[in-house]
Amino acid sequence: MGEPFDAVDVIRTKRDGGRLSDEQIAWVLDAYTRGVVADEQMSALAMAILLNGMDREEIARWTAAMIASGERMDFSTLRRPTADKHSTGGVGDKITLPLAPLVAACGVAVPQLSGRGLGHTGGTLDKLESIPGWRAALSNAEMLAQLDDVGAVVCAAGAGLAPADKKLYALRDTTGTVESIPLVASSIMSKKIAEGTGALVLDVKVGSGAFMKNLDDARELARTMVGLGSDAGVRTTALITDMSTPLGRTVGNALEVRESVEVLAGGGPEDVVELTLALAREMLAAAGREDVDPADALADGRAMDVWRRMVAAQDGDPDAPLPVAEHTETVTAPTGGVVTALDAYAVGVAAWRLGAGRARKEDTVQAVAGVEIHARPGESVRAGDPVLTLHTATPDRFARAREALEGAIRVDADGASAARTREVVLDRIAQ
Amino acid sequence: MGEPFDAVDVIRTKRDGGRLSDEQIAWVLDAYTRGVVADEQMSALAMAILLNGMDREEIARWTAAMIASGERMDFSTLRRPTADKHSTGGVGDKITLPLAPLVAACGVAVPQLSGRGLGHTGGTLDKLESIPGWRAALSNAEMLAQLDDVGAVVCAAGAGLAPADKKLYALRDTTGTVESIPLVASSIMSKKIAEGTGALVLDVKVGSGAFMKNLDDARELARTMVGLGSDAGVRTTALITDMSTPLGRTVGNALEVRESVEVLAGGGPEDVVELTLALAREMLAAAGREDVDPADALADGRAMDVWRRMVAAQDGDPDAPLPVAEHTETVTAPTGGVVTALDAYAVGVAAWRLGAGRARKEDTVQAVAGVEIHARPGESVRAGDPVLTLHTATPDRFARAREALEGAIRVDADGASAARTREVVLDRIAQ
Repeated sequence: MGEPFDAVDVIRTKRDGGRLSDEQIAWVLDAYTRGVVADEQMSALAMAILLNGMDREEIARWTAAMIASGERMDFSTLRRPTADKHSTGGVGDKITLPLAPLVAACGVAVPQLSGRGLGHTGGTLDKLESIPGWRAALSNAEMLAQLDDVGAVVCAAGAGLAPADKKLYALRDTTGTVESIPLVASSIMSKKIAEGTGALVLDVKVGSGAFMKNLDDARELARTMVGLGSDAGVRTTALITDMSTPLGRTVGNALEVRESVEVLAGGGPEDVVELTLALAREMLAAAGREDVDPADALADGRAMDVWRRMVAAQDGDPDAPLPVAEHTETVTAPTGGVVTALDAYAVGVAAWRLGAGRARKEDTVQAVAGVEIHARPGESVRAGDPVLTLHTATPDRFARAREALEGAIRVDADGASAARTREVVLDRIAQ
Repeated sequence: MGEPFDAVDVIRTKRDGGRLSDEQIAWVLDAYTRGVVADEQMSALAMAILLNGMDREEIARWTAAMIASGERMDFSTLRRPTADKHSTGGVGDKITLPLAPLVAACGVAVPQLSGRGLGHTGGTLDKLESIPGWRAALSNAEMLAQLDDVGAVVCAAGAGLAPADKKLYALRDTTGTVESIPLVASSIMSKKIAEGTGALVLDVKVGSGAFMKNLDDARELARTMVGLGSDAGVRTTALITDMSTPLGRTVGNALEVRESVEVLAGGGPEDVVELTLALAREMLAAAGREDVDPADALADGRAMDVWRRMVAAQDGDPDAPLPVAEHTETVTAPTGGVVTALDAYAVGVAAWRLGAGRARKEDTVQAVAGVEIHARPGESVRAGDPVLTLHTATPDRFARAREALEGAIRVDADGASAARTREVVLDRIAQ
């Protein structure tokens, strides 16, 4: 065969707690992309990595090998600096939608290659596709032209970017090997580094609706990714943000676009505005524009202008009405009092079951499905008041969505323990 | 799909250190056999089992599920009790060849379903196939008739026996998931229990040429298998035996048949005779015939008679000359003194490289290839005396075989440390 390594030897090294050499990592990812290392060998290796870990140098090499498996984009011809944001995924996380045009309005180009949702967290492309006419697929030339002209682009990552990661990500999803900090960090960072952004801000979510359930793990993931980005010459910082309850008042594709437009119009829920501005400040600072206050561009309508141009550049109609669900049902408060918890994971699963997300890659999503939130933690309700409205095109989905919500809403009748309002931004990690 | 479980949930349970339920185990092995659980999912699960273990009940259930995946044989119509032996594999381990006819000559039927060699340990079927005309494949009816008539049969296991194990074994071989005591024990015992033997003696080898490198691991494997057999109603005992140096004076297919016939004729190397008699006594005792001394049947030629009938019943010619290698080379002692070590693993690899074994299942083996041992540990040599003779049909293989032997032979010039002769049988494990 002429292969320099044997897959079984590489697997055994990690299985027995050893360190993979640079050459082993470069070979195994290249050979996997070529099909010489089989899926069942890579999944065994992924499980050994998940259970035995990788050190910082192994993770850096693993990331570099995934970048090397495909093309790299180059934005050096642009007339402005570039900055991107990546969220590890949360429920109601529509922040990219107001954030990208806002940062572009402040003079920094945002080249965001996005993915689709899988499981209980939604995908940015799915959300934007609820805008009539909008298309996610752009050629590299179209992307570059839009960045130069509009300053912001959110589109689907082409097949040429980190193909080893693409193959490995699909494999991990079906083999119980997703929840590994080294594999998550290298997967995210290989795509972002290959994408060619000059600066990167990571939104690492923590809580029931997030991949990371506790603050220590979230910090470790953030530190790992900030290290990888910095080592690769991308100015990278991370915010650790709360995902114990959904962001804003909407979860679902068209519902979240509507809320994002409200934010761009100067309104919208407080937490969404706060997080959008916090991430915008980080992106501007990482791109060398800490002198600009993004609150101004939000207030004076410049961010909204860029949003409209960004949607139109991808054939979307910013003035077209968004689709609305034919069927809705409300979930009411069983007792009066103060809402003390609205579980992010439960709401995410409910929205997913209503049709907002997909169980398999090949599923389609409903633009109209989702959950509207009338009472967030800290807010008062009377018995019988609506807490949630469930939206779907297919009313047979209501029953299973309600099942997901059992125990998800807590109302404190005497309001005594109501004072605990959580901060949105919990920590900041920089190099 | 109508499947009661999801493969990812089963994998995650074991990955996170949990216990697999009886229902999860039964389902995952059945679904794997049906192709519903994919190879890459099973290899991730196998790695999680290797690293996180299984408790005794999980192993029992895993074994039962592999048995349930196929047919079970039934020897209840036989007029005599049955006993089988299984060795975990060693270098020069030809013991089955004299042992099966010996035990049959003592009135206990031996139904041995055997495998082929892979890697540095040889396979019993490969050895017997060096006898002109001998065939490994028998129908169940032929096997039963031969057991009834001759009392001993060594043949290939049919595809119907524990098919889940067959599929999993091949997968583990390519995914670095072989070295797991729960998986090894359940693989061996599922085949032996399905085979339908009434009694079973395990030869668990320990040392450089064995799967188990230290005595503690060998004892744990033995105890696990003895427990599984006993729980399934098979009277099971185990001997832990030394595999730091090859058994006897030959390694290779025809060479080992020749040595086995010498043992049946009342000669042969002392260690081979000793282990053959020790295992025969265990088998007879487990089958309820502790009153019979196998040494008598070896001395008076009854074992040789059964051997000749056993070979002839499978179309082999017991009088035909065995094939002999056209090419031989000797390895000589660099200094005079006493041989203190002759490494089993190195000799096994050398024999394999000479053509006695296969690197892949589809390879063919040479009947003539192998290693003859002139000086075993404890024996004296003069400088330049032959220690080994290498045999092959393809002389271009000599160089790589010699490479494998580098450092494998130790000669103590002043003979001071020579007294350490190792016992063959190191321990005995019973319920």
